[in-house]
Amino acid sequence: MKTITIYDIAEEANVSVSTVSRVLNDTAPVKASTREKILKAIEKHQFQPNALARSLLKKETGTIAMILPDITNPFFPEVFWGAENVARSKGYTFFLCNTAGDYSRESEYLSILREKRVDGIIFLGGRINLSNCPPELSQEVIEMAMRVPIVLVNGNLPKSGLHRIYTDEAEGATIATQHLIDLGHRDIGFIGGLDYTSTTLVKVKAIKKKLKEYGIDLKKEWIQSGEFSVQGGRDLMNKMLNQVRRPSAVLCVNDFTAIGAIKAAFEHGLRIPEDISIVGFDDSPLSTAVIPELTTISQNTNQLGELAVEMLDQIINGNNPKKQIVLKPYLVMRQSTGPFKKI
Amino acid sequence: MKTITIYDIAEEANVSVSTVSRVLNDTAPVKASTREKILKAIEKHQFQPNALARSLLKKETGTIAMILPDITNPFFPEVFWGAENVARSKGYTFFLCNTAGDYSRESEYLSILREKRVDGIIFLGGRINLSNCPPELSQEVIEMAMRVPIVLVNGNLPKSGLHRIYTDEAEGATIATQHLIDLGHRDIGFIGGLDYTSTTLVKVKAIKKKLKEYGIDLKKEWIQSGEFSVQGGRDLMNKMLNQVRRPSAVLCVNDFTAIGAIKAAFEHGLRIPEDISIVGFDDSPLSTAVIPELTTISQNTNQLGELAVEMLDQIINGNNPKKQIVLKPYLVMRQSTGPFKKI
Repeated sequence: MKTITIYDIAEEANVSVSTVSRVLNDTAPVKASTREKILKAIEKHQFQPNALARSLLKKETGTIAMILPDITNPFFPEVFWGAENVARSKGYTFFLCNTAGDYSRESEYLSILREKRVDGIIFLGGRINLSNCPPELSQEVIEMAMRVPIVLVNGNLPKSGLHRIYTDEAEGATIATQHLIDLGHRDIGFIGGLDYTSTTLVKVKAIKKKLKEYGIDLKKEWIQSGEFSVQGGRDLMNKMLNQVRRPSAVLCVNDFTAIGAIKAAFEHGLRIPEDISIVGFDDSPLSTAVIPELTTISQNTNQLGELAVEMLDQIINGNNPKKQIVLKPYLVMRQSTGPFKKI
Repeated sequence: MKTITIYDIAEEANVSVSTVSRVLNDTAPVKASTREKILKAIEKHQFQPNALARSLLKKETGTIAMILPDITNPFFPEVFWGAENVARSKGYTFFLCNTAGDYSRESEYLSILREKRVDGIIFLGGRINLSNCPPELSQEVIEMAMRVPIVLVNGNLPKSGLHRIYTDEAEGATIATQHLIDLGHRDIGFIGGLDYTSTTLVKVKAIKKKLKEYGIDLKKEWIQSGEFSVQGGRDLMNKMLNQVRRPSAVLCVNDFTAIGAIKAAFEHGLRIPEDISIVGFDDSPLSTAVIPELTTISQNTNQLGELAVEMLDQIINGNNPKKQIVLKPYLVMRQSTGPFKKI
């Protein structure tokens, strides 16, 4: 069965393809008799202009893409959920591009998405979380943004001037530290992700600053950096607990590592929070799935996704939204933190 | 800046659009002198045929879609991860359509995806897990499959003849039951998801059958059905444990409900597995995040995704792969099950 295309309609009506397009999309006046001819041809062939053809003519595809590092980390599906809800209401469908945190895969996707003429891109993780993003990686995104609207979520490319939305992670780490201090803890450790990521460094800096207000040092041997995973957190906590002097409370870079820390603490025969307090970061669904339930910092994940799409949609529609939206994180107190007790 | 299109090239070279297409896509021979003219026009205007235009001409978009009920349930990101890895190697990009288990949203996405001319669709959850799918919902997918290749993952539409790949859930439930029997358990309960889903019913049937071999009844009051979530599992386990006679072991419909069951058991002051054994289903990353780590049934999630894309790619390429692939589930023994002890 031959599919009828706009070319066939044009031929049948003896007009140009662009005239057919004008009638289909109602973008410019067409002489009544010509219009009539075209409509007749459309009816005769039961022609249905498809979305691809229409988007070619209109220059929009109704698609946006989300580039993210790890869809199996529960933080990202939560952001996606919020984003998709808003995107659907605005008539967009989502490409999901999982990069496994690999910069070359990010580049590959950027190029594919340009080819696919997406209307916009939401970018999370990977290079936008590097504390020192190599200029060529940064430049690639900046150049892409000249053609396709881009919103960065929870990350940044310095001097790029790109639109971004993020939870104030420094503020989150500050709140978490204050929480532990209020509980009487003074010996506080930090279990981080990769130490060249802003996600890690911003938090360490904020924790140090808050502790300093109370005349407390963040001991070097109590800052442990490694993977962002459950296993990563477990390994780092093991290192921490194998030291002669242990902290009485530990702040973690995310919920994944916090859960790993809880596991390691149990394996060392410690009770939580009686013997050691542990704080996560993200408030992903994991935090209520573990026992004890995790005290953590909410990053407003759904809202991050929702607002990212709102912002992107504004740019796509030629409006000029504010360059930055900052969300306030907040403490969610559950069962993994408690008052300091001398052992 | 005016974008150069294939129409401009055709006009400049004084040939038809389809002749330009033939040269661009190398689909049919074109006279050398004509070819020359077209290439010159392309060079002059620095024309770059975009992916959309090319896909219109070639009738393929290089996109496939995954329709799934809940991207925040860790089972699905795992399937997606496997699927995307294979899809990438074959040059496809993924639309991700999260339906929240809402059939009308599934319908909406089917229609959008048809409009977007995806090359194929991978369908999970929702209507394909109903034990009695209403004919109009089933028919919609069957009709769609006449136009767009579809592969069903872990579900079915009876008499549809659609391609499908699934883990043998009955076999999985049988293995889990045998595991508990081998540990000496005789008082076995089941915590299920929605009771009109095949995901739940298939398992209940298999458990009953296996227990019968040992002369054991699955007591009606020990079959609890409800939501597929952590909170669902918690509520159902609470109901179970508030009864005068309690089971010594509980099989769960998925890891989410198993984690809820663990939480409820702890809240009732029970130790796991000393006082009660709990088995999950899926072997999602959650199962190693909880304490105790979950004994569960692996559904080969990554592989499900990988093979679904392989199968879909075969259909897209006009091959005729086997209609069904069945994966064998297997037991992953961890810490949440132990020998029956008389209390």
